[in-house]
Amino acid sequence: MVHIGHSSDVEPRVYHDGEVVRNVEKRVLVGPGNAAPTFSMRKFTVGADGCSPYHTHPWEHEVYVLAGRGEVRFAGGSRPVAPGDFAFVPPNDEHQFVNVGDEPFEFLCMVPLDGEDG
Amino acid sequence: MVHIGHSSDVEPRVYHDGEVVRNVEKRVLVGPGNAAPTFSMRKFTVGADGCSPYHTHPWEHEVYVLAGRGEVRFAGGSRPVAPGDFAFVPPNDEHQFVNVGDEPFEFLCMVPLDGEDG
Repeated sequence: MVHIGHSSDVEPRVYHDGEVVRNVEKRVLVGPGNAAPTFSMRKFTVGADGCSPYHTHPWEHEVYVLAGRGEVRFAGGSRPVAPGDFAFVPPNDEHQFVNVGDEPFEFLCMVPLDGEDG
Repeated sequence: MVHIGHSSDVEPRVYHDGEVVRNVEKRVLVGPGNAAPTFSMRKFTVGADGCSPYHTHPWEHEVYVLAGRGEVRFAGGSRPVAPGDFAFVPPNDEHQFVNVGDEPFEFLCMVPLDGEDG
């Protein structure tokens, strides 16, 4: 059955160790809990001075920026991103998402089910 | 390699027969053209009085509403949607996306590669 909800009604999981990952909230909007068969849709909110870890893994990301000012860092460079921008991170490419503004940096990040840790 | 772009720089494909599908633009932000291995990310813009077809297919949709006022119609009902809302349409469920406002109704719609017609 079709399931519809509002993203702010989904409880976030917080990621923060004060160093490699800071001020990150993840909301799994659609995923294993909905019996999604192929991939998950997650919404990330990265607070001021926040970032995801600089890391790599064997699955891809497909990202769409919703709000704020961010930077995508990757092997050999970085790029500023703003609402309406999108990013494709292929499997095994190093990457990091960093808030470089004063407001929350929000983006959707879709992954195949292999990349969803719940 | 990481690929970053702006959604408005992607050429749209237009769907409009004046009846079952009206005033729909689709932009494939990430898909087969990027060698995406699992699923595609598309941005749809449905103009005033526009709609996608009421139909079904054997793959799922994962949808996030970006702008405007829409309605999701499905077997047995319908629901209004607004920015920040998300929807999961399981495989084989009937569904339609309708613009019920005056402004463009914009949403992301992710599908497994099987559901991407290019």
